Amino acid sequence: MISSKLPKIFYGGDYNPEQWDQQTHQEDLQLFKQAGIDIATVNVFSWARNQPDEVHYQFEWLDELINSLYESGIYTCLATSTAAHPAWMAKKYPDVLRTDKDGRKRKFGGRHNSCPNSPTYRKYSTEIASRLAERYKDHPAIVVWHVSNEYGGDCYCDNCERAFRVWLKTRYQTLDALNTAWNTSFWGHTFYDWDEIVLPSNLSEEWGDDNTNFQGMSLDYSRFNSDSMLECYQLEYDAIKSVVPDALITTNLMGFFKPLDYFKWAKQMDIISWDNYPGLDTPVSYTALAHDLMRGIKNGDPFMLMEQTPSQQNWQAYNSLKRPGVMRLWSYQAVAHGADTIMFFQLRRSAGACEKFHGAVIEHVGHSNTRVFRETAALGSELQTLGDTLLDSRIESKVAILFDWDNWWAIEKSSGPTIALKYVDQIHKYYKAFYNRNIQVDVVGVDSDLSAYELVIAPVLYMVKPGLADKLEQFTQNGGTFVTTFFSGIVGESDLVALGGYPGELRKLLGIWVEETDALLPTMRNQIVMNQSLGDLSGDYECGMLCDLLHTEGAEVLAHYGDDFYKGMPVLTRNTYGKGEAWYIASDGEEAFIAGLMKFVADQKGIQPVLDTPAGVEAGRRVKNGEQFIFLLNHNAEAATVELNDLQVTNLLDPDHTGQSIEVPARGSVILSAPYSS
Amino acid sequence: MISSKLPKIFYGGDYNPEQWDQQTHQEDLQLFKQAGIDIATVNVFSWARNQPDEVHYQFEWLDELINSLYESGIYTCLATSTAAHPAWMAKKYPDVLRTDKDGRKRKFGGRHNSCPNSPTYRKYSTEIASRLAERYKDHPAIVVWHVSNEYGGDCYCDNCERAFRVWLKTRYQTLDALNTAWNTSFWGHTFYDWDEIVLPSNLSEEWGDDNTNFQGMSLDYSRFNSDSMLECYQLEYDAIKSVVPDALITTNLMGFFKPLDYFKWAKQMDIISWDNYPGLDTPVSYTALAHDLMRGIKNGDPFMLMEQTPSQQNWQAYNSLKRPGVMRLWSYQAVAHGADTIMFFQLRRSAGACEKFHGAVIEHVGHSNTRVFRETAALGSELQTLGDTLLDSRIESKVAILFDWDNWWAIEKSSGPTIALKYVDQIHKYYKAFYNRNIQVDVVGVDSDLSAYELVIAPVLYMVKPGLADKLEQFTQNGGTFVTTFFSGIVGESDLVALGGYPGELRKLLGIWVEETDALLPTMRNQIVMNQSLGDLSGDYECGMLCDLLHTEGAEVLAHYGDDFYKGMPVLTRNTYGKGEAWYIASDGEEAFIAGLMKFVADQKGIQPVLDTPAGVEAGRRVKNGEQFIFLLNHNAEAATVELNDLQVTNLLDPDHTGQSIEVPARGSVILSAPYSS
Amino acid sequence: MISSKLPKIFYGGDYNPEQWDQQTHQEDLQLFKQAGIDIATVNVFSWARNQPDEVHYQFEWLDELINSLYESGIYTCLATSTAAHPAWMAKKYPDVLRTDKDGRKRKFGGRHNSCPNSPTYRKYSTEIASRLAERYKDHPAIVVWHVSNEYGGDCYCDNCERAFRVWLKTRYQTLDALNTAWNTSFWGHTFYDWDEIVLPSNLSEEWGDDNTNFQGMSLDYSRFNSDSMLECYQLEYDAIKSVVPDALITTNLMGFFKPLDYFKWAKQMDIISWDNYPGLDTPVSYTALAHDLMRGIKNGDPFMLMEQTPSQQNWQAYNSLKRPGVMRLWSYQAVAHGADTIMFFQLRRSAGACEKFHGAVIEHVGHSNTRVFRETAALGSELQTLGDTLLDSRIESKVAILFDWDNWWAIEKSSGPTIALKYVDQIHKYYKAFYNRNIQVDVVGVDSDLSAYELVIAPVLYMVKPGLADKLEQFTQNGGTFVTTFFSGIVGESDLVALGGYPGELRKLLGIWVEETDALLPTMRNQIVMNQSLGDLSGDYECGMLCDLLHTEGAEVLAHYGDDFYKGMPVLTRNTYGKGEAWYIASDGEEAFIAGLMKFVADQKGIQPVLDTPAGVEAGRRVKNGEQFIFLLNHNAEAATVELNDLQVTNLLDPDHTGQSIEVPARGSVILSAPYSS
Repeated sequence: MISSKLPKIFYGGDYNPEQWDQQTHQEDLQLFKQAGIDIATVNVFSWARNQPDEVHYQFEWLDELINSLYESGIYTCLATSTAAHPAWMAKKYPDVLRTDKDGRKRKFGGRHNSCPNSPTYRKYSTEIASRLAERYKDHPAIVVWHVSNEYGGDCYCDNCERAFRVWLKTRYQTLDALNTAWNTSFWGHTFYDWDEIVLPSNLSEEWGDDNTNFQGMSLDYSRFNSDSMLECYQLEYDAIKSVVPDALITTNLMGFFKPLDYFKWAKQMDIISWDNYPGLDTPVSYTALAHDLMRGIKNGDPFMLMEQTPSQQNWQAYNSLKRPGVMRLWSYQAVAHGADTIMFFQLRRSAGACEKFHGAVIEHVGHSNTRVFRETAALGSELQTLGDTLLDSRIESKVAILFDWDNWWAIEKSSGPTIALKYVDQIHKYYKAFYNRNIQVDVVGVDSDLSAYELVIAPVLYMVKPGLADKLEQFTQNGGTFVTTFFSGIVGESDLVALGGYPGELRKLLGIWVEETDALLPTMRNQIVMNQSLGDLSGDYECGMLCDLLHTEGAEVLAHYGDDFYKGMPVLTRNTYGKGEAWYIASDGEEAFIAGLMKFVADQKGIQPVLDTPAGVEAGRRVKNGEQFIFLLNHNAEAATVELNDLQVTNLLDPDHTGQSIEVPARGSVILSAPYSS
Repeated sequence: MISSKLPKIFYGGDYNPEQWDQQTHQEDLQLFKQAGIDIATVNVFSWARNQPDEVHYQFEWLDELINSLYESGIYTCLATSTAAHPAWMAKKYPDVLRTDKDGRKRKFGGRHNSCPNSPTYRKYSTEIASRLAERYKDHPAIVVWHVSNEYGGDCYCDNCERAFRVWLKTRYQTLDALNTAWNTSFWGHTFYDWDEIVLPSNLSEEWGDDNTNFQGMSLDYSRFNSDSMLECYQLEYDAIKSVVPDALITTNLMGFFKPLDYFKWAKQMDIISWDNYPGLDTPVSYTALAHDLMRGIKNGDPFMLMEQTPSQQNWQAYNSLKRPGVMRLWSYQAVAHGADTIMFFQLRRSAGACEKFHGAVIEHVGHSNTRVFRETAALGSELQTLGDTLLDSRIESKVAILFDWDNWWAIEKSSGPTIALKYVDQIHKYYKAFYNRNIQVDVVGVDSDLSAYELVIAPVLYMVKPGLADKLEQFTQNGGTFVTTFFSGIVGESDLVALGGYPGELRKLLGIWVEETDALLPTMRNQIVMNQSLGDLSGDYECGMLCDLLHTEGAEVLAHYGDDFYKGMPVLTRNTYGKGEAWYIASDGEEAFIAGLMKFVADQKGIQPVLDTPAGVEAGRRVKNGEQFIFLLNHNAEAATVELNDLQVTNLLDPDHTGQSIEVPARGSVILSAPYSS
Repeated sequence: MISSKLPKIFYGGDYNPEQWDQQTHQEDLQLFKQAGIDIATVNVFSWARNQPDEVHYQFEWLDELINSLYESGIYTCLATSTAAHPAWMAKKYPDVLRTDKDGRKRKFGGRHNSCPNSPTYRKYSTEIASRLAERYKDHPAIVVWHVSNEYGGDCYCDNCERAFRVWLKTRYQTLDALNTAWNTSFWGHTFYDWDEIVLPSNLSEEWGDDNTNFQGMSLDYSRFNSDSMLECYQLEYDAIKSVVPDALITTNLMGFFKPLDYFKWAKQMDIISWDNYPGLDTPVSYTALAHDLMRGIKNGDPFMLMEQTPSQQNWQAYNSLKRPGVMRLWSYQAVAHGADTIMFFQLRRSAGACEKFHGAVIEHVGHSNTRVFRETAALGSELQTLGDTLLDSRIESKVAILFDWDNWWAIEKSSGPTIALKYVDQIHKYYKAFYNRNIQVDVVGVDSDLSAYELVIAPVLYMVKPGLADKLEQFTQNGGTFVTTFFSGIVGESDLVALGGYPGELRKLLGIWVEETDALLPTMRNQIVMNQSLGDLSGDYECGMLCDLLHTEGAEVLAHYGDDFYKGMPVLTRNTYGKGEAWYIASDGEEAFIAGLMKFVADQKGIQPVLDTPAGVEAGRRVKNGEQFIFLLNHNAEAATVELNDLQVTNLLDPDHTGQSIEVPARGSVILSAPYSS
């Protein structure tokens, strides 16, 4: 479990008493108790308070804060305060300020505002992390160390440019290798000196969000930028670890956050934590997928839900209230997908600046007589009852979806064949086919071990990095079912095309050759015409966006196109490979097609749902020590009944209501326990 | 009246003979006479002509112009020529050039191009105003002094940054006070030195039009920028006044122009003047509202319509012709709302540059045989007949709508709860309910005296400045009816939330507590379900955008929500307060609801329309010395008949057509006079 | 013909073996042979390879390349490699880097990246052209010299600013003349020193794509920018000619490419070449028009189709495949309109960077067993059969459409009356009326000789340059039919309005006076009501966008408006002028109206289609030595039959299939020959 000091699901969140007077703080402590809150994340944005100038540090306020919380039974998640540099630092050392993609030197302001390659920033952020570690290393209140906050953004300053060249030298060793990787002979961009290389920005090779002349260069910049921030994180991490070797260190991630390769980051984190901010119109399946990604980057380990809002956000276009029950529902959804904490941003709502309309446990009115507080306190009480029951339980899955940041960057930086292709949308489409049936899915990276899975899905596996094709062949050879789609197997890790016929390194495994890929206008559609029934799958389905024109080389054709000059050509193929099968879906099919096909391949492998539930009711399972915990999450605005089919269960939150048929209220959550053998 | 020299509605407009040769000018003088034109605004953009270098000034051309006009019976509105600096000045003193919000130093070009804190600009603009005053102080042609032109825009240069710090020191005295006002402890932005403060721009705290991290800082920048330009105006004003103490000085405003706080500006202006440029699709009620604002900022004093186009504009996307009759109709609409002049931009149409397709009295064809000229001349003739009849008459109103620039800025810089909320739209919605019934409205500021009104409407009174709540309580206590809406009473003058429960300082007056505010997606609607009939108001109405969830604390509930989890909660309340009533409308209701409710509250106070008229026919009233002037303005494309109900009238423009029933032609205007006692 | 060395339609395209190894190059040579390819454009982007630093040049690779191609029977179109400067040059001489319209100095990257007024760029681009000329002057493989590539873009650096002032001094001689031309007295922009003039950019007079405060200045910048690039071209041209006097020199143009005045460029080019990239949804009539423009800028001379894609593009939003047959169809469409070459970008598809998804003859798979290769080879074979049959044949037309870059720039930089007016759209509307009937059209410039035409159409002839009105009067006087439209005759060459009544210099010819021009909102429409039938034209037609309100001065009224306050005013007039007629269309009519009217005026002059064909089947004619070549191009997805009406023909590509009725397959092309007398 995260901390033996607090053997339960942590319940609390960000707390910024530096914005308030002492009396308010005392009231807060009472209210926290009332709400069952037992952890507070503090010191997130206090750098200017901690270090008022270059020489002096003042932590007395923090001592008092941590002590007063601890005396009230509240543990501390201690942030390092480096998420926004002080104004004096920006004035004295402008190198801490970023230069944006348009080449504009920023002035002091905002957050995520420090250049990751600023010598000043690196020096002082490490220094303060070190001082915090020294000061609080023995404090019994500290359960987690929280480095910076929501790393993100990018920088194009001269320091970054120089650091990029160093990063490139390390990667490529020689300019020849670099010139080859980037294909610089195209447009005569050959570099004869490392110092001729400039950052790819809106002033050089890029324009807008995802347009570049040189994909290889831009891809390396994305890697470099992610690595630069990771180095900043690592410097603070090391500073803490050198003082507190057993510190549990994290930084809060943001789900599908494109700029940072979280698979790489996860390796340097003791525990994953993340901030979950769905909107009123975010599909619940998308939230579920994001949780699974956050679990997947650290091999299935339980993670921290570091932030969610008790009700409203402020930065969306339309910041709706969370309907009654939804905060609890989405909290348990997080737990169902692997969270071992439920934490909020924030505990008390700010009175000024841009987040003053962001929801909080304690609203501006300042007392507990609010719907939001009551819902928070009710959940707090429930979590105290649960104790350590769920902690450290894990999710078992036979299905893996492959996700890769490099692939994401590369697909969306591509010039052609279509601007309509969005990687995460494709991942979500396939994920949803399992989610809707309560089949749990692991999201895995290209370095992950696949041997425990029956089914591996890799939508739009455009980039096949060294070794991946072998691993997928091995997986299939051994009996696994592999599924991939159109626009796969096109390039290697530098975005250079795998010559000799698409899908390149996957060609043998899939038993096909893709000759051409048609890009359809948004108004155009084609059809997937099934050659035979596959389970529920029969007849015609719509497809569009991209249509591969392929020839089989050993694979079996299961469906063909219904229209256009490639009418009759294969659109769905299956290749027997060793003991397994490799499927190829040549176009972007409609939801019913994907759902039907995924059901077919899952059925083939005997993969069963956690439970069959009515539409809109999610069922998830966590497992520990021969016991399973089944979560029934009713996302509907009406109650629903779930049949348990002879499963003998205990209703953990409501022991009096059990039986073979469980009614889950509108937006309600039920947790059942039962014996389990996998 | 504006000038005893010209005791009638001034008729004329901008004239730029420096673009033309002498012969054209002589032709113009003839045509002006033919059109009944008696005033010309000159010297608006002649700085480069007046001052060809740093040392020399040349006004001889202006002498001749003013004289030749005067000899033709045309008075002068004399501009100071500082609305665009000369090219030589930009080259020699780059400090006159602005830096834009993206940090880009401008080059010479455009107009509104001078940095308001440029020492060079301030020195030379004052100097030329002074020289003009000296030269023309005794000239009998001058009736109005016109400082610069349409002040606007903003600047982010180093001079402005330094001036901002000085402005802040004056406002806050201490950094502690400033840090508190801006809540800088949020995100650790604490300032330890005034010089650490940078302007809020796209390089620091802001992005786009209305997004900022620190509302308090951005609000202060808006105030500072408005004040900086006001100082420039004031410098020229003082330069003129010190030479010509009885000069009548103005600068032309632009109605709902967001960057400048015209209530503050009006205090420094001898008379208000403004430029009215509705498009073909601008609601006539919106134009009426803008006139009322321009009258309201100077306590109801008559104002100058300084500019309108005789027909077309050039800067709109689609520059439609004014249909026959519309120029006259909209001219009289201005007069009906308080204008004592009717002036055009411009008298002769330019041959080159960006305004060459802007309409003018004299078109490119150069003669009088055009529809536009004929309509202009007909109105000129009519105005001569009217003489001083209408001058100095005033509008009497029992209804005030509160408008506040600070509130405008603050609402639209807010991060959350919705991007759909636009302050002026809300003002217009409530205004229209009165406009459509011919009930005249004063638009007043938060410093205005409210004691003369029966009804005060303050839509979205988000910011309640010190003293305002007391004033509104006093107003209601004494028997007035006060109406406000959702998202009111939230913050104080620094955009810091009024803690302890919304609507903050208005809570006692309104007798309610707003617990939460839901923001609806654009596709979502709720209903206002009336608990009882209120006049014509009964049954259900649509509402949306924002929905306050409120609890009454003494107020009576008159309608409740029809949908969502807050179905049944109050959406319309009325609180008896002293001798008066305070109403609260908790959501954005549809037009029929607002119309019905405003009729109900007006009826309660016995507030009567000027006249009942058919739809699309506006009726307005001005009053002087026991006489009333009733304007019937038919905005329809068909004739309409207005019943006068025993009112004994004189038809001022068409004495032969009178009676108890007046037919107003399509797009026609009628002015009636009758005895009056208020 | 282009070259006596290769007396046939050149077949080949861009080839970049510097991106490939030697073995691949050898395979390419085999594949080229297989595909009937006989020309390769090389050295387009090889500057960095040719000149690795400031001192050294290395052309050995190019020697080998040209030789190996030549040994395989492939001629060379030799580019000068200056289309993108080397990275080392950007680093050492930043003056080669452009400054963009926002004032941002570019860093190294992209192509079209050299400042046209950079001394370094001019020096080294001339130097390398010179060295190439010296090295290859006697090489038998070279058939065409290709300077740079697709000139375009703009620059706003200090070097350009200084050069602009020099350009202006040359044009205007005195500042007085310039101040008058630009009407700088408007907004007081009078210049007293040439050095006060700054470039019109987003930092001075412009914003966005087509907005400016001073049209005259912006228009001159457009001319200057086009001229600056033309000077760069000319420097390389002269460098080659001084060494190789009989060199055939071109640069590849881009059809309706707004930044460059191709009529002016054409004068400096030995042969026109251009790159044709229609999308799946580009109207075929638009492609036809672009070909006719490219033929028209050089007085009807045959041109080179320098680039087209064999199948896909990469830079469009949706890069569809060219359907089977379409590549051949569009190739022959080019020939039908005057092309004497069919060339591709490119011969082998790149493996990396932004064009790797741009189609090529040899796809990534690297062999010939692809649909694209087969279609390419089939056409190659066909072209060998055709030999020199078609070469140097010309198009004869009795109809000219006037096109003018200055007019294009001026119309779209106009502030008012509507943003909806797009010049090329209007040109295309009128062109299409002839295209759909297989009446061939010449696109001519304002300097062209019109005497050979029966019919001259000048849609939206907004700018009438000196001498043009006289020429049009002369043309009509002599019996020609002249047609123009709304918003014509408004300004002269400096965008100064022709005073005294629109349409200015065209007023006499057209016999009308336009008093006003109404701009309609996008939702508004009016009607053209025919006063009498004109051929098929009768009844009512829709019109909109702009509506001129005009009075006849001798012209006959043939149709009137059906709506609005100008209902009944003329909308279509015809003025008899000498032996001819001048027509005026006062509003933007619907397609059926334009089609009917153009048919009527063509019928009047006895202008006949090449052939009558079913809808979607284009018929074109080229003529040489008493023989005509008729192209039947079926753009439909179904076969169509064309009746030849007693014409005795030879089917050139399929001699066995001939007769009086020719079936053209879906997307098929047929070329017939027959005797001809014009």
